[in-house]
Amino acid sequence: MKILLTGTVLAALALGGAAVAQDAPFGMQIKARQGIMAYRAINLGVLGKMAKGEMEYDAAAAQKAADNIAATTTLDASMLWPEGSDNSANPASTATAAIWAAGSDIGDKAKAMADAAAAMQAAAGVDLASLQGAMDAMGGACGGCHKAFRVPQN
Amino acid sequence: MKILLTGTVLAALALGGAAVAQDAPFGMQIKARQGIMAYRAINLGVLGKMAKGEMEYDAAAAQKAADNIAATTTLDASMLWPEGSDNSANPASTATAAIWAAGSDIGDKAKAMADAAAAMQAAAGVDLASLQGAMDAMGGACGGCHKAFRVPQN
Repeated sequence: MKILLTGTVLAALALGGAAVAQDAPFGMQIKARQGIMAYRAINLGVLGKMAKGEMEYDAAAAQKAADNIAATTTLDASMLWPEGSDNSANPASTATAAIWAAGSDIGDKAKAMADAAAAMQAAAGVDLASLQGAMDAMGGACGGCHKAFRVPQN
Repeated sequence: MKILLTGTVLAALALGGAAVAQDAPFGMQIKARQGIMAYRAINLGVLGKMAKGEMEYDAAAAQKAADNIAATTTLDASMLWPEGSDNSANPASTATAAIWAAGSDIGDKAKAMADAAAAMQAAAGVDLASLQGAMDAMGGACGGCHKAFRVPQN
């Protein structure tokens, strides 16, 4: 398939996946939830680099990153996940419809993440070993939800 | 200007401004801050519709929306705005470099937003007139920053 795009259309695309996704079904909700995920990823990146020795351990910076991740788990996200706002409705989302299926344990998985974030918040500023000790549960909580409810990433 | 795009490239575009923007300069930061803005917009939308009579006033729902907006103003966003992460570095962003220019009052504008969000939080659940009374300051705070520091929207 080859499609000819004019400069105008390309300019619109360049102005942002942002604008494009926003007008699509559930665009604003998807943008908001992916943005919150990105915020977590940025802060988790700091903790991950310290845990792996790629960045020098800094108690204050580690605490701040952990506080930030924990803060996102207290945000009310209920309006961001209307039923049907999955990848089949809008390919900008990588969420699967299994989230809303009967017997879905999405609530447990959300709680597991909040618990792991709280544990990291208690550990990150203590010392490097404590931070490292909290990383497995944190990674497991992220991965648990992604494996169950995200379109497989290539 | 006309550019020929193959199906593969189009598929990549369709898969998401998300993925595209993320790999571009400051992609994660831009995605996070735009996501937080979208979260605010969704909640402000509820308050705006009630204020304009497009949605029946509901004290609990209004309070929740106002609480949510206020919560975002307490999130540490310092890591989301590295100098240079403006529209010229990545067109997915609509932020201008004026944010980091000498004499920029971005700090005052951020404080104005937090103040307006706190005032809305105190007013939204009281009654419709109180909510409406807090909307001007809220809209002014949003617009103040957008007018000063955002690439003009068409």
